[in-house]
Amino acid sequence: MNGAEALVTTLLQSEVEVCFANPGTSEMHFVAALDRVAGMKCVLGLHETVVTGMADAYFRMAGKPAATLLHCGPGLANGMANLHNARRGRSGIVNIVGDQATWHRPFDAPLTADTEGMARTVSHRVETVAAPARIGGAAVAAIQAARQGQIATLILPADVSWQEGAAPEVAGPVAPAAAPDAQVIETAARLLRDPARRVLLFVGGNAAMGPGQRALARILPATGAEVMAELLTARMERGQGRLPIPRIPYPMDLAMEKLAPFDTVILVGAKAPVAFFGYPGRPSSLLPEGVELHVLARPEQDAGQALAALADALAAPEGMLPGGGPLPEAATGAITPESMAQSLGALLPEGAIVVDESITFGRNFGQVTMAPHDWLALTGGAIGDGLPMATGAALATGRRVVSLQADGSAAYSLQALWTQARENLPCTTLLISNRRYNILIGEYHATGATPGPTAMEMLDLGRPDIDWVSLARGFGVEAARAETMEQVNALMRASFARTGPFLIELVV
Amino acid sequence: MNGAEALVTTLLQSEVEVCFANPGTSEMHFVAALDRVAGMKCVLGLHETVVTGMADAYFRMAGKPAATLLHCGPGLANGMANLHNARRGRSGIVNIVGDQATWHRPFDAPLTADTEGMARTVSHRVETVAAPARIGGAAVAAIQAARQGQIATLILPADVSWQEGAAPEVAGPVAPAAAPDAQVIETAARLLRDPARRVLLFVGGNAAMGPGQRALARILPATGAEVMAELLTARMERGQGRLPIPRIPYPMDLAMEKLAPFDTVILVGAKAPVAFFGYPGRPSSLLPEGVELHVLARPEQDAGQALAALADALAAPEGMLPGGGPLPEAATGAITPESMAQSLGALLPEGAIVVDESITFGRNFGQVTMAPHDWLALTGGAIGDGLPMATGAALATGRRVVSLQADGSAAYSLQALWTQARENLPCTTLLISNRRYNILIGEYHATGATPGPTAMEMLDLGRPDIDWVSLARGFGVEAARAETMEQVNALMRASFARTGPFLIELVV
Repeated sequence: MNGAEALVTTLLQSEVEVCFANPGTSEMHFVAALDRVAGMKCVLGLHETVVTGMADAYFRMAGKPAATLLHCGPGLANGMANLHNARRGRSGIVNIVGDQATWHRPFDAPLTADTEGMARTVSHRVETVAAPARIGGAAVAAIQAARQGQIATLILPADVSWQEGAAPEVAGPVAPAAAPDAQVIETAARLLRDPARRVLLFVGGNAAMGPGQRALARILPATGAEVMAELLTARMERGQGRLPIPRIPYPMDLAMEKLAPFDTVILVGAKAPVAFFGYPGRPSSLLPEGVELHVLARPEQDAGQALAALADALAAPEGMLPGGGPLPEAATGAITPESMAQSLGALLPEGAIVVDESITFGRNFGQVTMAPHDWLALTGGAIGDGLPMATGAALATGRRVVSLQADGSAAYSLQALWTQARENLPCTTLLISNRRYNILIGEYHATGATPGPTAMEMLDLGRPDIDWVSLARGFGVEAARAETMEQVNALMRASFARTGPFLIELVV
Repeated sequence: MNGAEALVTTLLQSEVEVCFANPGTSEMHFVAALDRVAGMKCVLGLHETVVTGMADAYFRMAGKPAATLLHCGPGLANGMANLHNARRGRSGIVNIVGDQATWHRPFDAPLTADTEGMARTVSHRVETVAAPARIGGAAVAAIQAARQGQIATLILPADVSWQEGAAPEVAGPVAPAAAPDAQVIETAARLLRDPARRVLLFVGGNAAMGPGQRALARILPATGAEVMAELLTARMERGQGRLPIPRIPYPMDLAMEKLAPFDTVILVGAKAPVAFFGYPGRPSSLLPEGVELHVLARPEQDAGQALAALADALAAPEGMLPGGGPLPEAATGAITPESMAQSLGALLPEGAIVVDESITFGRNFGQVTMAPHDWLALTGGAIGDGLPMATGAALATGRRVVSLQADGSAAYSLQALWTQARENLPCTTLLISNRRYNILIGEYHATGATPGPTAMEMLDLGRPDIDWVSLARGFGVEAARAETMEQVNALMRASFARTGPFLIELVV
């Protein structure tokens, strides 16, 4: 069996069943092995940023890693921004990157690049497979790392791929991350029992999934503590019947205002909250001075399990998850952040997945009652993850996906629309066309000045206006433009009633 | 003066007058400085791969570096594939990459990444500017490196950008690369004088520009030697009145066949020819066994100057540059590689710039007589450079640019069309829509098998067919589809007669 066949077999035997791909010549023996060893679902992205973004969302929704297939050096580089997002969100991915044959590399052919150096910048684990006999072991190590939420990159020289002498292996189960020990739990419980303290549980990881929410529903009423989530949590279960967990706001002043009342913060699967960027004369940490900081669970631990143990330590009785108020009526009139949130609450199908790359327009989208849904955020702040993630989430689940998608970010990875069309995925894109990098105009003002004409050359997306309906159709996705909420509502309803993707351009 | 102002001033005083940009928050003080210090032409790309590809072509045509402005970490990563191409083509670029404020970096905010590590993989020179007082010196070093064809990356922490205490400098002229010494020239002359040898001059760099061609027109008739160029020469002057210099073919067997007759190869600004990739049982070098290899000029030296010195050493009389035969008539009937080449010969405007990312379809486009033009190739083999390069070449020169553009590669960086529309550039795109990664289907066959259905999921670009007319219009570029050469000819003529961009989708 050659190296490529052993790798495909190891992946399949280890339940890595989807390969997001954009191959090149150095991967051709791996592609040929995918023909010979049946069972892998291969999904093409027209650019590697689509490939890695799909793999990110696949992990968030399927709870297990997919593989990516990337071309040596530059192909990997094209996928690095969304690997950065995946790394920040702890989405495990097995990257398979073909490379020059070992004996050909010294000849420095045009596509030869520092593939290992590139991989290291975004990976937890990098291995260039030295020989066919090593491929099974290398794949197992990569798969096990990815199952723990790590980016594992296997660099596969072409000759290692085509040579005989390889044998497949099976990745055995990975031991779960250690649970917090009794003393840590008891400390947290003691803090929560202290009536003199104002305690915030600052949560991330899987704290906002079912078990974590049920534990929080016990802890909060029993102790009077409050809860807040990281802004960019990879996946939250939200909507009716779920515990509303406010996310910390993006604007620094607002975030500090929200945190100011607390004298004790317990981190549960979250890092301590910090500003997105440093500003002159401003602090990096968003926490109030003198706050007492404790860690119940580190980001790589099981936050839900830690919360359940804490609820038990508090002997807190079962709490009620809120029934959720009634859904709002669909909004009418002008398209605004508020009216869009309202119509989303009215119309979002139960069980939908919301992929939020709405940047400035959608900051308050989460405050309206909606049907139960999953919410995926831009975990690493590198724009261009939204449309690829929507595509990967739909592939992982078959569920309706609604993209809340800013235009500037959509322009980074619009090629994902083509994969949505090819795979006939239930993806509805709400394309918010405000025709500017609005967040940056805000950041420019934060420097104490107003953008002049030279700056606006770089911050304004008009001249010419981008026609998103035309772009979507170009990639095979039906689309329509809306200028009123009545039109938005009708188009959303129509889209949710059909199979296949649809894009609604909201001119705002 | 703050760091950002000193940097902008240093750039302008050193004749770096164009900044291709896609900024983010950490660059906002630099953007503000561009408003306050007048003189920089700023050009926005909707994705960093457009930004770096424009800068690559700008250097090739303007002969001096532009700056790029990129966002920390992931923004730089998005531009790395075209930095790879630029590096391979020896296009100098000054990358300015904003980054976290120095004191904010340890807090590991979401967009914090290994910016330096990323930059090193594609740069000749990387400097993270440590303090405002260093910015002038760091910028001068970067500009001087870029003038020598290097990728120079300046990482600019936000606080270094906004702090006072910086002073601008001016980059002094760079000494030219050393000319070959007399003994090297005499050795080459001796080889060429030896009637028993079959000598090939294998050229790269600027050998295919005017001075190099005039020297070759003296050397070749005087010695009987032959000339061949690297496949992916950054820029060649071609067409009527220029010396036709055949490029080495891409297919390995054909390349080896062309090189087989020679027993002596002299490298002039070129590296020894090697296969693009390694194949089982095949060699890496394309040179015949036992060939005698000499170096007249290394890639970083002035190949044209070396050839002139060699012609002088040979006392070769002035040679005639060919008048070039008559231009062909425009072709009619079906769209084929041959008919397209013929119509290009008939219709290409004098002084045009041809950007060749035609991959398989255009391999013989260069063999037809055309009006004098410049030809830019995909130097590093990382697809997605074509449309950005066309945009940058038009910005650098104002001349008509004709893109010979394969569809799979165009899908990597179609966002460049928007910049063509915004800047109203004279760019004509001949979009060759064969709806597959044709080069990879050939490479799959080279493994000894025929692609099965799983492989074709990754090699076929149909299902759905991409509508390039719709995509172009979405980005504000007028476009039309052609299915016959008569339609192609009419659309080419119309496009060449107007200002502004136009895309012709060739259904082949």
